[in-house]
Amino acid sequence: MKQFLSANDVTDVSALVKRALEIKAQNLNGDLKSPKVFNGKTIVLLFFNPSLRTRLSTEKAALNLGMNVITMNADQGWQLEFEEGTVMNLDRAEHVKEAAQVISQYADLIGVRTFPTLTNREQDYNEFVMKQFVKYATAPVISLESATLHPLQSLTDVMTIDENKSTARPKVVLTWAPHPRALPQAVANSFVEWMKKTDVELVVTHPKGAELAPQFMENLTIEYNQLTAFEGAHFIYAKNWSSYYDYGKIITPSKDWMVTTEKMALTDGAKFMHCLPVRRNFVVSDDVIDHSNSIVIKQAANREFAAQAVIEDMLINTINN
Amino acid sequence: MKQFLSANDVTDVSALVKRALEIKAQNLNGDLKSPKVFNGKTIVLLFFNPSLRTRLSTEKAALNLGMNVITMNADQGWQLEFEEGTVMNLDRAEHVKEAAQVISQYADLIGVRTFPTLTNREQDYNEFVMKQFVKYATAPVISLESATLHPLQSLTDVMTIDENKSTARPKVVLTWAPHPRALPQAVANSFVEWMKKTDVELVVTHPKGAELAPQFMENLTIEYNQLTAFEGAHFIYAKNWSSYYDYGKIITPSKDWMVTTEKMALTDGAKFMHCLPVRRNFVVSDDVIDHSNSIVIKQAANREFAAQAVIEDMLINTINN
Amino acid sequence: MKQFLSANDVTDVSALVKRALEIKAQNLNGDLKSPKVFNGKTIVLLFFNPSLRTRLSTEKAALNLGMNVITMNADQGWQLEFEEGTVMNLDRAEHVKEAAQVISQYADLIGVRTFPTLTNREQDYNEFVMKQFVKYATAPVISLESATLHPLQSLTDVMTIDENKSTARPKVVLTWAPHPRALPQAVANSFVEWMKKTDVELVVTHPKGAELAPQFMENLTIEYNQLTAFEGAHFIYAKNWSSYYDYGKIITPSKDWMVTTEKMALTDGAKFMHCLPVRRNFVVSDDVIDHSNSIVIKQAANREFAAQAVIEDMLINTINN
Repeated sequence: MKQFLSANDVTDVSALVKRALEIKAQNLNGDLKSPKVFNGKTIVLLFFNPSLRTRLSTEKAALNLGMNVITMNADQGWQLEFEEGTVMNLDRAEHVKEAAQVISQYADLIGVRTFPTLTNREQDYNEFVMKQFVKYATAPVISLESATLHPLQSLTDVMTIDENKSTARPKVVLTWAPHPRALPQAVANSFVEWMKKTDVELVVTHPKGAELAPQFMENLTIEYNQLTAFEGAHFIYAKNWSSYYDYGKIITPSKDWMVTTEKMALTDGAKFMHCLPVRRNFVVSDDVIDHSNSIVIKQAANREFAAQAVIEDMLINTINN
Repeated sequence: MKQFLSANDVTDVSALVKRALEIKAQNLNGDLKSPKVFNGKTIVLLFFNPSLRTRLSTEKAALNLGMNVITMNADQGWQLEFEEGTVMNLDRAEHVKEAAQVISQYADLIGVRTFPTLTNREQDYNEFVMKQFVKYATAPVISLESATLHPLQSLTDVMTIDENKSTARPKVVLTWAPHPRALPQAVANSFVEWMKKTDVELVVTHPKGAELAPQFMENLTIEYNQLTAFEGAHFIYAKNWSSYYDYGKIITPSKDWMVTTEKMALTDGAKFMHCLPVRRNFVVSDDVIDHSNSIVIKQAANREFAAQAVIEDMLINTINN
Repeated sequence: MKQFLSANDVTDVSALVKRALEIKAQNLNGDLKSPKVFNGKTIVLLFFNPSLRTRLSTEKAALNLGMNVITMNADQGWQLEFEEGTVMNLDRAEHVKEAAQVISQYADLIGVRTFPTLTNREQDYNEFVMKQFVKYATAPVISLESATLHPLQSLTDVMTIDENKSTARPKVVLTWAPHPRALPQAVANSFVEWMKKTDVELVVTHPKGAELAPQFMENLTIEYNQLTAFEGAHFIYAKNWSSYYDYGKIITPSKDWMVTTEKMALTDGAKFMHCLPVRRNFVVSDDVIDHSNSIVIKQAANREFAAQAVIEDMLINTINN
């Protein structure tokens, strides 16, 4: 891969998942620790928005490969100009044109994390910030979550479902869940995008008004009744997102959408998944997330191996080209 | 050791001190730099409160051992919920239950730094934050200072006294000293706890009202007259702490408790110690801390070797189990 | 070198430039990546002011050499006292005397970044902060930009001119350029200091009122007419600085000093340089900085190699002494 911004950058999702699972087996055996195949290569991780889980797992993955890791929190005191042709007489001290090129001088690979505005839908869905960065970067770029997608999370999710399924073609339910804050649609969009490239029966359930953007709704089974959706499910993936149509607004459905033990009882002993962090007893009840069918910690652990598979693939690609 | 939260986690304090001194000799000879015995192991350092000295010495120690070091400043923008069973509908985005488990997936060892509230004594002295973290972490935890204890500092202090003593059983005086801010009792509590496990004559001197918590006062010699306490001392350890009984309040004694040359003259040529940072001419006068009997810099340097001895011990324990 | 604070610390500028160019060739060939000659050595980078480019290039350089890198942002929550003999009863928790000595215990090399006050000229031009740090540090110190000098940038600039010149003794023009903020004089001062040690024809052009400090004006050709200065130039180095005489004030000249295509047309096909970050269409027009004669990205890339040459020189010096 020359970039990793969405599922569309991956030619063979199942091969990448297989490799991530191999890496997991190797790492847990301590096998991959010694070779450090990319010793001397440098990854720069650039956070326009704070991150802890993504940062931790990506740093770990790169260190496993023997790479140098340099992490920059660009959210403090580094205002970038992303628009073309402006007179830069205000707060923004540097243009992305220089920033992306300069970082590329020091990096073999660049990870970029940026969030949506949740106020300017057009800009967010054009992935303005990420695309401007990629346009000028000369080193390959990995998305550490962008305005509308979170591919490292979704690769992890595919991998985790593959690893934990007990039927050939499981029923996977993405259920909207409540949240006190307005959250991006990135995880949901991305989950749908990746699930379509795998052999599962995908059902999305959410209240009216929580419809995703049209491009993610194509060929998607929507079930507005959460209880119906849960019937016979093998995986319940809970996630909140704010409104796409009333852009960035918190959705407050008339009935309760929290995932509870009563609802889980409708499933076929479904595994419970969430990308974390999760609001306990608001998104999901304690008894569901603490149940032995909850695989949220395994899922989080897989972030490391997914990131390592992506980094490896991109560096091999870079070396061979 | 499976955890390092207090002196009670150490089966043989003097053996650990001996090992720290060996590591010091090896490091300064450049011997230990090459083996890098824990190459590929990862320590995650999690700071709920800012730290510079502890961070620097612990990172250095882990790097000496060839480990990967990932440092997270959790004080900015990562509000954890520590209470059980709450409905997480407010500011706290993640429960310690997930946080501790997830970090454990990426870490062979976790360092945690947290401070007291200085308003809720019961919570602080129950070590609520540290204990909740340890309860859910599946990787071993090293305290980088908790609400009421600072074991890495105290191990360093024991080591420094051992290294610099000229009599078999030195008289060690912990003296309270003034400070413009309300400080934790952690260093004082911890010093007392560790000193009781070593062969010294320990005297604590402080103004009325600066008594430590009862569990640290047991079998402790208190001398309210600072001048009397200093007589014949071989080590003067200065430290401020706020009130335990009028919890978290600054103590303002009627007379001056600053350590001065006049007071040092009462000792048996005592070495001067302080954990740093220190307020010059408030806690201690310039002439005392700048005197050749001041060993505060050697003491700070020993932080690296104490941390390295603890990390080594915990990882060997982990590997063998 | 035992310290790297200005050009005066370098005995042979051209030898150091030659070495930086060798390192560049080696690094780009991948030659230097394996030896990692300073494996186990530690550099601590201490930022009293935020930095991204300097931090990134210096971290990369040290990692190339196999060093441990520990970066401390001292601008947040670590207030140092720099004055001697004060009673430390206010905000400043630690004296530079302890801070510099303690960091020296953990470091083989210390990088320090500090900015001018731009209000207290005497303090800034005495390099009060940097000198106090160096006075107490026992490990060698590299300036990562100080109040009045930026030697790593200037070494990079000398190297970049040397690498890109097509005549034996090029005409190099440092031109003042406008900026919406009050900036330090450090880059300009330092550029002049280093250029005087190389075989170039140096001309400085700036509006009246933008004169540098007297010590930097000695034996310097000043041309107040920007257009005249540009004639026949081989390198145009644009940089804003605030007033030295009306200390720290923004200079607002009567005519426009932005570098434009029209002005560049007066030169002998000059290369365009800037230390970055740069305000596009305020300091320089888009068409100049985007032109093939603009070498600002190559210049930024050279920061890594210049830093590596300096670190190498200082560590070899340390080892041999």
